[in-house]
Amino acid sequence: MNGLLIALRQDNGKHLYEQIYGYIKEEIRKGRLRFGERLPSTRSLSEFLQVSRSTVELAYGQLLSEGYIEARPYRGYFVCQVEELFDFTDRGAVREAGMLSGEPLRENDAADGRGRPVCGGRQNSVADGTYLCDFSPDSIDMTVFPYATWKKITKEILVDANSEMFSSGSPKGDYALRETIARYLHSSRGVNCHPEQVIIGAGNDYILMLLEKILGRHVEVAMENPTYRKAYRIFASFAYPIASVEMDGFGMSVEGLRKTGAKVAYVMPSHQYPMGIVMPIGRRMELLKWAGEQEDRYVIEDDYDSEFRFKGKPIPSLQASDRLGKVIYTGTFSKSIAPAIRIGYMVLPLPLLRIYEERCRIYSTTVSRIDQRILNEFIAGGHFERHLNRMRKVYREKHDLLVNGCRGMGHDFVLSGENAGLHLLLQDRRGRSEKMLVERAGEAGVKVYGLSEFYTDGVAPKRESGTVVLGYAAPDKGQIQTGLDLLKKVWA
Amino acid sequence: MNGLLIALRQDNGKHLYEQIYGYIKEEIRKGRLRFGERLPSTRSLSEFLQVSRSTVELAYGQLLSEGYIEARPYRGYFVCQVEELFDFTDRGAVREAGMLSGEPLRENDAADGRGRPVCGGRQNSVADGTYLCDFSPDSIDMTVFPYATWKKITKEILVDANSEMFSSGSPKGDYALRETIARYLHSSRGVNCHPEQVIIGAGNDYILMLLEKILGRHVEVAMENPTYRKAYRIFASFAYPIASVEMDGFGMSVEGLRKTGAKVAYVMPSHQYPMGIVMPIGRRMELLKWAGEQEDRYVIEDDYDSEFRFKGKPIPSLQASDRLGKVIYTGTFSKSIAPAIRIGYMVLPLPLLRIYEERCRIYSTTVSRIDQRILNEFIAGGHFERHLNRMRKVYREKHDLLVNGCRGMGHDFVLSGENAGLHLLLQDRRGRSEKMLVERAGEAGVKVYGLSEFYTDGVAPKRESGTVVLGYAAPDKGQIQTGLDLLKKVWA
Repeated sequence: MNGLLIALRQDNGKHLYEQIYGYIKEEIRKGRLRFGERLPSTRSLSEFLQVSRSTVELAYGQLLSEGYIEARPYRGYFVCQVEELFDFTDRGAVREAGMLSGEPLRENDAADGRGRPVCGGRQNSVADGTYLCDFSPDSIDMTVFPYATWKKITKEILVDANSEMFSSGSPKGDYALRETIARYLHSSRGVNCHPEQVIIGAGNDYILMLLEKILGRHVEVAMENPTYRKAYRIFASFAYPIASVEMDGFGMSVEGLRKTGAKVAYVMPSHQYPMGIVMPIGRRMELLKWAGEQEDRYVIEDDYDSEFRFKGKPIPSLQASDRLGKVIYTGTFSKSIAPAIRIGYMVLPLPLLRIYEERCRIYSTTVSRIDQRILNEFIAGGHFERHLNRMRKVYREKHDLLVNGCRGMGHDFVLSGENAGLHLLLQDRRGRSEKMLVERAGEAGVKVYGLSEFYTDGVAPKRESGTVVLGYAAPDKGQIQTGLDLLKKVWA
Repeated sequence: MNGLLIALRQDNGKHLYEQIYGYIKEEIRKGRLRFGERLPSTRSLSEFLQVSRSTVELAYGQLLSEGYIEARPYRGYFVCQVEELFDFTDRGAVREAGMLSGEPLRENDAADGRGRPVCGGRQNSVADGTYLCDFSPDSIDMTVFPYATWKKITKEILVDANSEMFSSGSPKGDYALRETIARYLHSSRGVNCHPEQVIIGAGNDYILMLLEKILGRHVEVAMENPTYRKAYRIFASFAYPIASVEMDGFGMSVEGLRKTGAKVAYVMPSHQYPMGIVMPIGRRMELLKWAGEQEDRYVIEDDYDSEFRFKGKPIPSLQASDRLGKVIYTGTFSKSIAPAIRIGYMVLPLPLLRIYEERCRIYSTTVSRIDQRILNEFIAGGHFERHLNRMRKVYREKHDLLVNGCRGMGHDFVLSGENAGLHLLLQDRRGRSEKMLVERAGEAGVKVYGLSEFYTDGVAPKRESGTVVLGYAAPDKGQIQTGLDLLKKVWA
C-alpha cells in the first residue's frame, strides 16, 4: 500500500476522511510521498483501511482541491510537485509569534478542521430592485441576519456602559477583540498569529490605507487580471505602480510575477475573485518562495469569502503555510456579517509589525469601542458560528439551485468557480459574445455581469468567448428560479 | 455718536448686546468705521441707547475678543486694522454652496448667536488614577455623559434595524447626518456649507489621512509652535515638510508664514492649542489673504474645542469669513461627546471637493451606519445641545474654581488662555524652570504638563520662564481643590 500506514482512530474527534487526508498531506509535505508517485485507488485504500469508499473519496477530493494530488483519467491519483524549501510545521511560526509577549497561544485552539472560517471582502451593495433577478456578485443576503441577537448584545453591552468604554482605545483595536479574531482565524483558517499582530480597522479600504503607510511609497504591486477592481483602484490611488500578471488554472503565474519588478503580490488564494480558482499548494509554495528571496517582498492574502465553501473542508489560508513572515493576511466582516459594521483586520508578519509600531501607532483606532465589544461578544459568544452555519445552509441551497439550473442549460456553457464563494462563472461554448449574453439577459429583466468588468483595463482577452459572472447571495430562491428560466429562454 | 445709529429691537430674538455687537462689527467690516477711529465710551453709548452699561460692555468685550476693536488704557476703544480685500457678506458663499444641488440652505438656520458650537479635537484619554489630581489637557469628563439617552436612542434605532441599515452607505457618510452637521455648524459656528461638502470619517486622524489623498504629496504645511503635536506627527508621517512658524499674541505670524514655502497653514483660530490664543479678525483676514494669493494655498482650521467658551458668545469660525474657498474646516465629536464614538468630519471648499470626488470616492466610509444614525438622532433630537449646555455648566464650575485658585497664588504667576477651552496656562514670574514646577507638583501627587511638551522639537524657547498647562475637564471639583492646595504649598 505504498507505505500508507494510516492509524485511524475513532476517538480523536476527527472524521475518518480528515485523518486520511491529514496523513497523506503530511507524507507529501515531508517528502515521503514524492512527486509523480501514484496513490492507491480509492477502492483498494478503502478495503485496506476498512472504511467506506466515499470516505476515501472525500479525503482525495480535499487533497485535489488543495493541489497536493492530481487525477489522471483512467490512471488514478498522483502526487503533485510541491516546493520543498519550507518546513511546513506551523508550530515554529506560532511559537515565534507567541514570543512577542512571552504569552503562549492556546494549543487547544489548533485547527480542528470543523471549518469555521472568518472574514469577508468585496464591496457589498443591496441588490437593485429594477430587475426580476439581479445576480450581483457583490451583494449578500441580509434577510436572515440575526437582528434580534445583535440588538440583544448591543443592549447588554450598553447596560455596562461606562466612561472607560466611551474612552478612546488602543490604536490597534481592543485587545479582547484582537484575541478573539486571532483565535478564530487560527482555528478556522490555520492562521498563525499572536493578537499583537492583529490590527483592526474600519473596513478593507482603511486597512489598505494603513498598509500603504507600512509598505511605503512607489511599491510595485502585482495583481491577477481579472481581479478585485476596487483593490486595484485603491492601489492606483496610492500611485503604486501595478503589474497585471497573467493567471493560469492555478492562479497567479509566478513565472509572470518574476518578470515584473513587483515587491508585493496581491492574491486571493482561497477563492480568486472573480475566477473562483483555488490556488493549489504547489503554486502557494512557489509564491512564498518568490517572497522569501528578497527581504522586502510580501504577499497580501485577501481572504474575502473563504467562509463559504461547498465542497470538502475549508482550504487553509496561505498564511498558514508561511514560515518566513511574508504574508499579510487581510479580511473583513462585511460579507460574513454585514457591510455596515465597517470592521476589517489584517495580520501583520513580524517585520511589518515592527514598522507599524514605529510609524502607525500614531493613528487612533477607526472603530468605536462599543462596536468592538459588540462584535467580540458576537464571535466569542458563539453567535457568529451559528450565523455562519445558517448562512452556509441558505447559500448552499441557492448555490445548488443555481448550479443545477446552469447544468440544465446543456452543453452550451462551461461552469466554473462553483465550489466556493458566492458566485460562479458561465463560459459560452458557442462563440457568443459577453455583450450579447449580458444584453439578452438584461432585456429579459435579469442582471448578469460580464467578466470583462473585472479586468483592470475593462476588456477581457479577445480569445475568450463570452463569460458571465453570476452571484447568488442576494436574490431569493424564487428570483433565482425566475432568473434561470428567463436565461434559459433568451440564451437558447 | 460717530454715526452709530443702532436700531435696537426687543422682538427679533437677539440680545441687545448682540445687536450692538453685530451693528458695530458690520460698520467696521463695511469700512464705515475706519482703522484708528475711537468708539464712544461705554457710558455714553449706554445713555444714548438707553440700555444698561453692562450691555454695552458685553458688546465691546465680544468685539475685543474677535479683534475688531482694541482697548487703549485711559483713552478708550479704537477700531483695529482689518484687511479689507474681502467682501464679508457670507451670503455669497452660502449661495455658492447651495447651488451644488440647486437646493437652498435654510435661511432660518443663520447664526442665531445662542452659541451652540459643535466639534472637538485633541486626543482624549481617561485621567491616570495614580495622581491625587491629574490636570491633563487631553481628557474630558465622562461622568455626566447621558448614557441613558444614548442607550435609549440606540435601542430605538435598532428597533427599526433592517437590511438597508446594515448595508454599506455613502463613502462620504449618510446624507442625513451630513445635513445635520452642516446645519449645526452653520448655526453654531457660522460655517457656510452644503451637506455635499461635509465628509464624515472615523476620527480626526482618518480625516487627515483623507486630506493627504486630496492635497497630494510633498505639501509643505505651516504649523504654529507650540502646537497640537499629534497633528504634527501625523503630517510628519505623511512625509510632508513642516515649517514651524512663530506666533505672536494673535496667533500664527503671517509674515513668518510668507517666509516659508508652505502651501497649507494648519491653525486653531478659535482657541489655539495649547496657548489658548483667539485669533483676532485682522489676523484671520491676513491669513485668508495669504491663501487667496495662490490657487493651491489652503488653511486647515482645526476647530477642536470651540464649544466651550466661558466669556461672551462663541468666536465664529475662520471658515465663516472665507469667501474664496480656502478653508478646510475640521472637527470631531471626541471632546464634545466621547472619544470612543470615533466620528469626525471635514468641510471641504469646492475646489477640493472636486478633487475628493475624483480621487477619494473609492474609499468606503469608515463609520458604521448604525453609529451614524445614533449620532444623527442625538444631534437632531436636541440631546447634543442639552448635553453641551450641561457640560458647559460643569466645565464652567471647574474652570472658575481653577481660575480663582490660580489667582489666589498671588503675583507669582501669569494666567492665560482662560477664556475658552478646557485648559489654561500658568507662567512663572520668578524665573523658576518648567522642569522644577512639574517635578515639585509631581512629588506632591499632582500632575501638571510642561509647555515644552507641546513644542514640535520638545523644547520651549529658552527666553521663556517656566510655563505649565493645566487641564480641568477630567478631575472632579474635589480633586481640583486638592490639586490647587498642594500646588500652592509646593510652589510657594
